[in-house]
Amino acid sequence: MTTAHAWAAHAAHAPFAPFTFERRELAPDDVRLDILFCGICHSDVHFARGEWGDPRYPAVPGHEIVGRVSAVGSAVTRHKVGDLAGVGCLVDSCGHCGSCHQGLEQYCEVGGTGTYMSTEKQSGLPTYGGYSDFIVVKESFVLRIGHEEAGLAAVAPLLCAGITLWSPLRHWKAGPGKKVGIVGIGGLGHMGVKLAHALGAHVVAFTTSPGKVDECKRLGADEVIISRDKADMARHRHSFDLIINTVSASQDLGTFCALLKRDGTLVMVGAGTEKHIAPDAFALLGKRISIAGSAIGGIAETQEMLDFCAEHGITADIELIGVKGVDAAYDRIVASDVKYRFVIDMATLG
Amino acid sequence: MTTAHAWAAHAAHAPFAPFTFERRELAPDDVRLDILFCGICHSDVHFARGEWGDPRYPAVPGHEIVGRVSAVGSAVTRHKVGDLAGVGCLVDSCGHCGSCHQGLEQYCEVGGTGTYMSTEKQSGLPTYGGYSDFIVVKESFVLRIGHEEAGLAAVAPLLCAGITLWSPLRHWKAGPGKKVGIVGIGGLGHMGVKLAHALGAHVVAFTTSPGKVDECKRLGADEVIISRDKADMARHRHSFDLIINTVSASQDLGTFCALLKRDGTLVMVGAGTEKHIAPDAFALLGKRISIAGSAIGGIAETQEMLDFCAEHGITADIELIGVKGVDAAYDRIVASDVKYRFVIDMATLG
Repeated sequence: MTTAHAWAAHAAHAPFAPFTFERRELAPDDVRLDILFCGICHSDVHFARGEWGDPRYPAVPGHEIVGRVSAVGSAVTRHKVGDLAGVGCLVDSCGHCGSCHQGLEQYCEVGGTGTYMSTEKQSGLPTYGGYSDFIVVKESFVLRIGHEEAGLAAVAPLLCAGITLWSPLRHWKAGPGKKVGIVGIGGLGHMGVKLAHALGAHVVAFTTSPGKVDECKRLGADEVIISRDKADMARHRHSFDLIINTVSASQDLGTFCALLKRDGTLVMVGAGTEKHIAPDAFALLGKRISIAGSAIGGIAETQEMLDFCAEHGITADIELIGVKGVDAAYDRIVASDVKYRFVIDMATLG
Repeated sequence: MTTAHAWAAHAAHAPFAPFTFERRELAPDDVRLDILFCGICHSDVHFARGEWGDPRYPAVPGHEIVGRVSAVGSAVTRHKVGDLAGVGCLVDSCGHCGSCHQGLEQYCEVGGTGTYMSTEKQSGLPTYGGYSDFIVVKESFVLRIGHEEAGLAAVAPLLCAGITLWSPLRHWKAGPGKKVGIVGIGGLGHMGVKLAHALGAHVVAFTTSPGKVDECKRLGADEVIISRDKADMARHRHSFDLIINTVSASQDLGTFCALLKRDGTLVMVGAGTEKHIAPDAFALLGKRISIAGSAIGGIAETQEMLDFCAEHGITADIELIGVKGVDAAYDRIVASDVKYRFVIDMATLG
């Protein structure tokens, strides 16, 4: 075991504070990653504040991890010491079920191992995430990073926000000739606009904030709809192939269903526990539309996304903070006051 | 114009009574069908009783029509006098939009012409349905019937109930190796069980009535789930590829979503106006499942279904009535007291 230093929630409503714990020794197929930057996902807030059930405190969030490989087990072939690498939301899965065999580890039928909020198979201990100085992960769950080191902090959010939008964009075939909407221009949504644009789709950003129109266009939106403007919404009826909804608050899904064309799909990616209002059956059956959900992405498609982003120069728009800024950042995330992702410089762990 | 005799609703709450009106003269591409039998769809009840907005009374429902061709226009090539033929829910569509070009006239983007509850393009008059002695329909909306004449009455419900289940079964690829659920074993659902079974799927019928178990198996179900039995439902978690839900009353859709496997689809075909309770986003995104809708079917797939049914000896299970039995039949439909479709013998129109 090797001692790791982390920045942890010690109780649901306590400020973050230092925490020391042991990471497992490297197995032959393990990689040790010295963590340079870790993005802050809204899930971190839910987890640390006990909103998704009481975690075993101290709790160490963080699943948008980038860093440098500092050690590899004897059987590791894909990574070498000194490489830049990343770890996302998953550090393990059963490896045997249909989903794992298809490279869809996020849908592991036995239940994958989350980077936090799970139990580590090897030790039986809770998994501790990326607000820490290093992490030990099976090589098959470690991603290669092709971006330049200079902008590495802004790569971190690709590991969750990026793949969460990439996976449905690819699964539902966003690309040239397709009109794609992205609802909610926050951490997830701003990546959706960038990625859908780079994939060649006609991208429409939905925002409740008239002040974000220029911002959305800068991110890559061809059009921007103020979603509270009924006339604006009505102009786009029956026109979308795909709408990806990143908002997790309870909504009347019929509003967006009305904008889909025949065989269009509304994909929910915001991980909330609130129930939504379903449209009536006529709204669904009149155009054979679907309401679907999509969760993060598998390891292979995460690598595909990282390679695509490296090639196209895509990173997140971030605000870099030190560990002491985490509590304030959480409050600002809850208030939707961030453009568009906080990333922690883990060198500030001291 | 030629005088037609019909059995019509003269007001929302009045009993059915005779009605005489004019059908258009045959255009070169028209077919005249002498109606032998007409099925009673739940939509007929909603329409005649003004539950979907006040129709122009007298209202003549009926869109499960089978009969014999008694005249053809000069340009008609696909039908000849004496042929058995059918007409379903649509008698026309724009013919130019993307949906029409793809043979999906039910999703005509201009709006197709319903067999009733629409306005006839040629005359500007309301369309009058199949509770009448004959009908004049464009040949491209007239279906060929390959069944033996002896069982013709039981073919009528294929024109709406049959195609409404066939279209989603085919679109979502029901067949060997697929586990397919049919929720609600009524007019629509009993056709779903028969068709899914004939397509080679493993068919599970969901019913609230323990008394229907043997019936469901006779129809072709491999298994029957009593949907109020939580243990029974729990045994089937994460196992369905496709569930087709024919129930239109408001439901918590999460109950059925729990039974889908990854990438499974819950398809709503019951045409209600009640809103359903959507599952929370976790239920959708945890398995990338979809909730979709599907409406009847296009003309080409209706013909495909009729040919398949003729080849496999599939018809509906029906209760044959005379026109004077329509009012009582409507009450029994509302009470779900029919196995499984009423069909009117139009010879009783007198």
